[in-house]
Amino acid sequence: MNLVLLEPRERGGPLPAADVRTRHVLEVLRRGVGDRFDAGIVDGPRGVATISALDAAGLHFRFEPTVEPPPLAAITLIVATPRPATAKDVLRDATTLGVCAIHFVHAERCTPSYATASLWTAEAVGEQLRLGAAQAFDTRLPVVTWGRPLAAALAEVATNMPVVALDNYEATVALGALRPPAPITLAFGPERGWGPRDREQLRAAGATLAHLGSRVLRLETAVTAAVAIVAAGS
Amino acid sequence: MNLVLLEPRERGGPLPAADVRTRHVLEVLRRGVGDRFDAGIVDGPRGVATISALDAAGLHFRFEPTVEPPPLAAITLIVATPRPATAKDVLRDATTLGVCAIHFVHAERCTPSYATASLWTAEAVGEQLRLGAAQAFDTRLPVVTWGRPLAAALAEVATNMPVVALDNYEATVALGALRPPAPITLAFGPERGWGPRDREQLRAAGATLAHLGSRVLRLETAVTAAVAIVAAGS
Repeated sequence: MNLVLLEPRERGGPLPAADVRTRHVLEVLRRGVGDRFDAGIVDGPRGVATISALDAAGLHFRFEPTVEPPPLAAITLIVATPRPATAKDVLRDATTLGVCAIHFVHAERCTPSYATASLWTAEAVGEQLRLGAAQAFDTRLPVVTWGRPLAAALAEVATNMPVVALDNYEATVALGALRPPAPITLAFGPERGWGPRDREQLRAAGATLAHLGSRVLRLETAVTAAVAIVAAGS
Repeated sequence: MNLVLLEPRERGGPLPAADVRTRHVLEVLRRGVGDRFDAGIVDGPRGVATISALDAAGLHFRFEPTVEPPPLAAITLIVATPRPATAKDVLRDATTLGVCAIHFVHAERCTPSYATASLWTAEAVGEQLRLGAAQAFDTRLPVVTWGRPLAAALAEVATNMPVVALDNYEATVALGALRPPAPITLAFGPERGWGPRDREQLRAAGATLAHLGSRVLRLETAVTAAVAIVAAGS
């Protein structure tokens, strides 16, 4: 936790004593009354908080904003809903990397039970986003949606920007050779690959197919690799 | 486990009944006598194994090689020894990405206890490498060393290839702008950054400093991002 992220309504404090952030400030950072720690308002400024008191109500502080973080990268992800542990890693790491939106969608060969996991609540998703942003020293969180079919997410993004679908099987060009500039949507299929109906929908959305080489990567690794390649070229 | 990896001495089988690979073939892949599964010999050919019998001795099979995988990428990593859970992820993911060597070293601001963790045995390290290679459908494992000082690893690599040290603080060029071609060594400092003595040693080895942008990435994410950027340009 490089940055303690506060919701706008928490800006005036106090943070409850049992809150994970309070414990981080007191136990990991070992701060006390009068000490300062790096903090930020979700989707607002980054700054410094000074601890003014510690009591039964929790950690009282004064937040002083110092800088407004730059906007997120114009990189959108469409991800066929993976198993929850993988989805958590993707949420956290893609947020750390600074993408502006992540849409978890239903594709033809998705495992249906993954979409009904307990992860898919605003609270549980938000926790991963805040972890990812705090790691990056950023306050900005990507827009995240889940539960829609692939076609719905494609319809939303494809009018605004090109779509590149990562594909191990039919792509003939490497993402590193393509180096598509942002704004861009990168689409990642399920473990068992895109199905024929998915491919039709990707074609209808004008998507280009690209690969990340002949090695089969875990989804988390593929997302980080692809975002890094696009960000490096932008 | 996309590929069942066998040590050369295991090529004739059988695999013990309790072996994790036997259980994977029987319980996850649901194969039986007469069925086939993808297999490979560590640092040797990939091929297909046919199950000939299942008995108290374990899983008997006939392995037929089909293809010799290409050599690994000429990308070497030097990594300041991180906490063991992170080191495991780096071992696995960097192997999946196909680097040819990983040297875990002692840098100035490393936490000394990390280097004495139980992970640092040939067996425990090998397990992560086999997981990473099996994911990539490859049989080749990188060379891995641990426990040496940074200077020793730099002395070994710097006579053979350029070194780029990732640095959030003093680097003025982005790795994505540099796009150094392989063969290359990428060096990653500890959580608290390179120390002054580390920097002297990096300078003495002729290392270039490069960054991955202003966002602070977890080590695992930085390694994947940097390897992907270099591999994309090679």
